[in-house]
Amino acid sequence: MKAEIVAVGTELLLGQIVNTNAQFLSRECAALGIDMFYQTVVGDNESRLMDAFKLAASRADVVICTGGLGPTQDDLTKDVLAAFTGRNLVLHEPSMNAITELFSTRGIHMVESNRKQALMLEGSDPLHNETGLAVGIAYTHEGTHFILLPGPPKEMKPMFTKYASAWLRSVMIDEVPLYSKMLKFAGIGESTLEHQLLDLIEAQTDPTIAPYAKEGEVTIRLTTRAKSVAEGERNLQATEQEIRRRVGDHLYAVEDVPIETVVLQMLGESGLKLAAAESCTGGLLSDLITTVPGSSHAFIGGIICYSNALKHKLLNVPMDVLEGEGAPGAVSIETAAILAQQLLAVTGSDFGISVTGVAGPSSSEGKPVGLVYVGLAQKDAEPKVVTLRLSGTRETIKHRAAKAALFHFWKLLKEN
Amino acid sequence: MKAEIVAVGTELLLGQIVNTNAQFLSRECAALGIDMFYQTVVGDNESRLMDAFKLAASRADVVICTGGLGPTQDDLTKDVLAAFTGRNLVLHEPSMNAITELFSTRGIHMVESNRKQALMLEGSDPLHNETGLAVGIAYTHEGTHFILLPGPPKEMKPMFTKYASAWLRSVMIDEVPLYSKMLKFAGIGESTLEHQLLDLIEAQTDPTIAPYAKEGEVTIRLTTRAKSVAEGERNLQATEQEIRRRVGDHLYAVEDVPIETVVLQMLGESGLKLAAAESCTGGLLSDLITTVPGSSHAFIGGIICYSNALKHKLLNVPMDVLEGEGAPGAVSIETAAILAQQLLAVTGSDFGISVTGVAGPSSSEGKPVGLVYVGLAQKDAEPKVVTLRLSGTRETIKHRAAKAALFHFWKLLKEN
Repeated sequence: MKAEIVAVGTELLLGQIVNTNAQFLSRECAALGIDMFYQTVVGDNESRLMDAFKLAASRADVVICTGGLGPTQDDLTKDVLAAFTGRNLVLHEPSMNAITELFSTRGIHMVESNRKQALMLEGSDPLHNETGLAVGIAYTHEGTHFILLPGPPKEMKPMFTKYASAWLRSVMIDEVPLYSKMLKFAGIGESTLEHQLLDLIEAQTDPTIAPYAKEGEVTIRLTTRAKSVAEGERNLQATEQEIRRRVGDHLYAVEDVPIETVVLQMLGESGLKLAAAESCTGGLLSDLITTVPGSSHAFIGGIICYSNALKHKLLNVPMDVLEGEGAPGAVSIETAAILAQQLLAVTGSDFGISVTGVAGPSSSEGKPVGLVYVGLAQKDAEPKVVTLRLSGTRETIKHRAAKAALFHFWKLLKEN
Repeated sequence: MKAEIVAVGTELLLGQIVNTNAQFLSRECAALGIDMFYQTVVGDNESRLMDAFKLAASRADVVICTGGLGPTQDDLTKDVLAAFTGRNLVLHEPSMNAITELFSTRGIHMVESNRKQALMLEGSDPLHNETGLAVGIAYTHEGTHFILLPGPPKEMKPMFTKYASAWLRSVMIDEVPLYSKMLKFAGIGESTLEHQLLDLIEAQTDPTIAPYAKEGEVTIRLTTRAKSVAEGERNLQATEQEIRRRVGDHLYAVEDVPIETVVLQMLGESGLKLAAAESCTGGLLSDLITTVPGSSHAFIGGIICYSNALKHKLLNVPMDVLEGEGAPGAVSIETAAILAQQLLAVTGSDFGISVTGVAGPSSSEGKPVGLVYVGLAQKDAEPKVVTLRLSGTRETIKHRAAKAALFHFWKLLKEN
């Protein structure tokens, strides 16, 4: 099956927002085994949207449309699909009731235009909106499957995942479903990882091997077609084993989670507490950790020892280690080790992670941009220090350093 | 002039990357006064790319194409434009020399396919690539202006800003250029700001008034057509004054900078030092500050007092303020004030910002998600505490709290 995304919204054409919906839907379609050939963005304009529908229907089996389902006069998507298919718009009673109820609960007068959000094409399948008011639509017209979704990602994503994707699978009954597995790696760059798997990636047929990279994390998605989980696992087994044999040291999860979530789970099971001392990451490491709900059970906090004065004052790094002729300096193995070790005494935590380095844009202490030391301390053991040589902008180096620190801490926890 | 973006790359259709290039180019075109009617994404496929060029040329005056300029056999954009226009590809000597030199400097054998990156259309204008190897192309064919840019944003953005945009302006000589001004607001939500300016926004003709929102910041771009800066300023004056009259208390800059940059500039001028004590923001506030290059001149660091134990141990909040029957608790005016005030003593800074609140997803101490207190302390003065009631996800609340803390600190600096 071939698909095309038609995103509707003048705010996209003005660059006011990024079309992240297209990425989400493209990945979802790839995971369903649907090929995407085009993505189109068109403004809130009746005749241009009609042209976009005509063109998409002429070249795709599935047209997934986002945006333009709201109550304002700019919201035209349902009207244009009605005109294109020659069907009437009718009221979807359950959606209308939900809208009426919401306004009455809030004690606000409902403006008549809100009725628009409960309209659907006669004979179409409604797609329930759990996080908003506008009902979605799934409808097959002359062999082309149309799916109309709201524009806001927080409404679009649950509607697609819970309802539209099941509807799509129901019209794809002749195809064997896809079975996918995510392998998550850290502490290794995308290009290094790809290089190590290059022969596998180039020779891929079944399963397919798709690498994706985010700052400091790489995901590999293995995909095959299978009628059951057991068959899917069987199809993936040899490839997964070979990948694990080559780069298994960096594999921290077989589901799509960031490494901070995995680290917090491991800490939660042990009941042990973590603290952080951040120099060059400047709070980002702690920010990543505390973005995970429930992180307060395992993470007690830490110290942003950005200046040498605070490294000395709050974490007892001797001034003659930090400064002066022949001193190791703030960016050194010595400082990283002391920061991590002192965290335990100063905060009372069981583990300490420290990060000190040169995020740039200028070098510091005569040391190059990208040189970063990660210190790892735990009770009753000598602290360890890992040296990183990172590249990128200031922001990228901060991010890669924070993720690498989490990766090396994860390794320490695994070895314990 | 009407423009269309054609983004080339199968990785976009697979959802491996987000098309942020389209947003960047759309905003740049809007700023140049070029109307964008469509954005298209097409894969690395010769015939489909040819179709996309034909369609774009039929409906736009300017076709801006990103991606497919690299050395691999998947990189087809120049070949397809050559076929579409009937021109030959010729070698751009300066680009070829740069490529040869780079490989010889690095001591790597140059694979022949790298020559492709130095090819341009016969008779076209080369666009210099300062951050990569592939030369860009600007070429007018039968009244349609084609601009070919590389896919990686770090190459595409400087090529557009420095070269392509000047080339575009040169083909738009008949049009009066646009004059724009950015007004940046913080400490006010987008909807509240829009509501206060609604009559101006709805009645806008010249200048146009375009609001954009990022988490915790709102930008208003005023745009007019003018032949000089003086004329531009004259055209904007009445509107800008009226906006300042209504919401000027929240206006922190008249250029596109984040509030942390403005705060650091103000601190830099005074020579005074700042420290932060973060509970619910968990490091994000310090991360935002330290992402600004040179922040170490004014920001000395701080304490992530995520647990009550650290609030007590490192920042001397009495345990009977934090816990127990009838205690104000960790999320309270009292705790926010003590944290900010104690920062001065503990770190030796001139200013202290504290943030304590409930980021969610669950309530805490019987206090609702989104309740946040920001404490502000300075030497020889009583600390102030600001109460925030924020909404959103855990991540959003952290972000809004950090930005709001910066806004209230900015107000304090301004009043000093």
